[in-house]
Amino acid sequence: MEPGYFTETDSAEVVIARNADAKSQRLQQVMAVLTRHIHAAVKEIEPTTEEWMTALQFLTATGQMCSDWRQEYILFSDIMGVSMLVDAINNRKPSGASESTVLGPFHLADAPELPMGANICLDAKGEPMLVRGRILDTAGKPIAHAKIDVWQANDEGFYDVQQKGIQPDFNLRGVFRTGADGRYWFKGVKPKFYPIPDDGPVGKLLAALGRHPFRPAHLHYILEAQGFDTLVTHIFDPDDPYIHSDAVFGVKHSLLAKFDLITDPARIKAEGMDGPFHLVEHDFVLAAKA
Amino acid sequence: MEPGYFTETDSAEVVIARNADAKSQRLQQVMAVLTRHIHAAVKEIEPTTEEWMTALQFLTATGQMCSDWRQEYILFSDIMGVSMLVDAINNRKPSGASESTVLGPFHLADAPELPMGANICLDAKGEPMLVRGRILDTAGKPIAHAKIDVWQANDEGFYDVQQKGIQPDFNLRGVFRTGADGRYWFKGVKPKFYPIPDDGPVGKLLAALGRHPFRPAHLHYILEAQGFDTLVTHIFDPDDPYIHSDAVFGVKHSLLAKFDLITDPARIKAEGMDGPFHLVEHDFVLAAKA
Repeated sequence: MEPGYFTETDSAEVVIARNADAKSQRLQQVMAVLTRHIHAAVKEIEPTTEEWMTALQFLTATGQMCSDWRQEYILFSDIMGVSMLVDAINNRKPSGASESTVLGPFHLADAPELPMGANICLDAKGEPMLVRGRILDTAGKPIAHAKIDVWQANDEGFYDVQQKGIQPDFNLRGVFRTGADGRYWFKGVKPKFYPIPDDGPVGKLLAALGRHPFRPAHLHYILEAQGFDTLVTHIFDPDDPYIHSDAVFGVKHSLLAKFDLITDPARIKAEGMDGPFHLVEHDFVLAAKA
Repeated sequence: MEPGYFTETDSAEVVIARNADAKSQRLQQVMAVLTRHIHAAVKEIEPTTEEWMTALQFLTATGQMCSDWRQEYILFSDIMGVSMLVDAINNRKPSGASESTVLGPFHLADAPELPMGANICLDAKGEPMLVRGRILDTAGKPIAHAKIDVWQANDEGFYDVQQKGIQPDFNLRGVFRTGADGRYWFKGVKPKFYPIPDDGPVGKLLAALGRHPFRPAHLHYILEAQGFDTLVTHIFDPDDPYIHSDAVFGVKHSLLAKFDLITDPARIKAEGMDGPFHLVEHDFVLAAKA
């Protein structure tokens, strides 16, 4: 009988065989896939002992950077494109439905429900913005009673929760519900790009990779309606300087909106605005529950 | 021009392209290999969002278990067979040379140099053992002035540094130098299997995988001689209950020694021992420097 001792050639198989009595079949499967890929990667890389130790020190430091208010491993997953990949795998959409992107860490479950048309900007800072569009099904039919949960960074790139005492609580957040026509509209301010936290091991890695830490300006949405899959997504400003290099790979072509600057006094008046503003028109298409 | 936005299909390529300006070519190469394998693994596993979060929490907890005296990520590397793989890659030997295995965390650089034949057991605990053999080159010629640095756990499976105040300092450690005949011999005690630290995330993972944390009984060696590659290795007791299931995959066929119990009074006397003892005879073959 073969004892199954370690050899360089059979390294992954030896390890996988050892997990034959795993308590869960799923864990056994996951560990087999990870073991095969990690061993294959190590064989391709052929790390020196020092490089292997550097990798272990990076993993250690990344764990030690985590606290109740900082999850450095999610950042690592983000900048590796893994968060977006897990999002994509779990949110495959039928043709024509709006695409998802990552939730991010700044959603609040208890944002206030507001009347359609409300201004979510509570401190009058930044360039005014009017956002509107329709919530539709894949046949193009309006969805009534859809819940639109929106949140955004301000004109300096900060969320309210990052500037407690500076921004009002629940600034630039709101929950709206569509009527029979599926339409939504609300006012906010033009968002700005902002960096992911880059003072930890992941920020150092980004710098070593010659990458910046910025996310292009965007609005976050969670869209819910009975009978439809919940959609977690953003819309992005296509003119943002970082639109082609989102640090977390969140941008998809279908998520590009347009932020049109409206300066014509007649249009300003017709839209009930006080001065020049950015008009963002974007429809969302929800997929029916399978 | 293609903007290179994220898609599920091209996920790895999009991420790899982003690292084009990495400060070091080696880092760029390493990240490309890791990105390809991590994305391929995620696509095979198709983790739920909850499973992805469980993985991130494991990585976080593993980092947070690390301290000045505990390196949980090395343990993780060990139980994944990665430490042995990195060791194998960095210590490929010509045919006939003795094989390497992992260093482990218990080597001390300043163990005392002892006269050949000395007893490294300072507290007279455990079953006496006589270890001997030759240090040879791959042509079978004895190597003179070879340095033999040996250390071992005691009869309860503990190293001196784990039992400060219980075991004498430098118990079961010694450095010896061969003469012209390449021979070495010293006395110790029969070592015992012992567990790797299993009270952290890696121990929990081992348990979930249905695996025990034990390493079979072994002696550690570092062998150095001018003109030869340094050899870091163990020899193992082939009759140990864990010889086929070393938690860290350190066992190789060529590292199996024999621990013969000698009870014949004439042989005991001839070997200069006081009573029954274990005789371990093992030659080491060093590879000439490339």
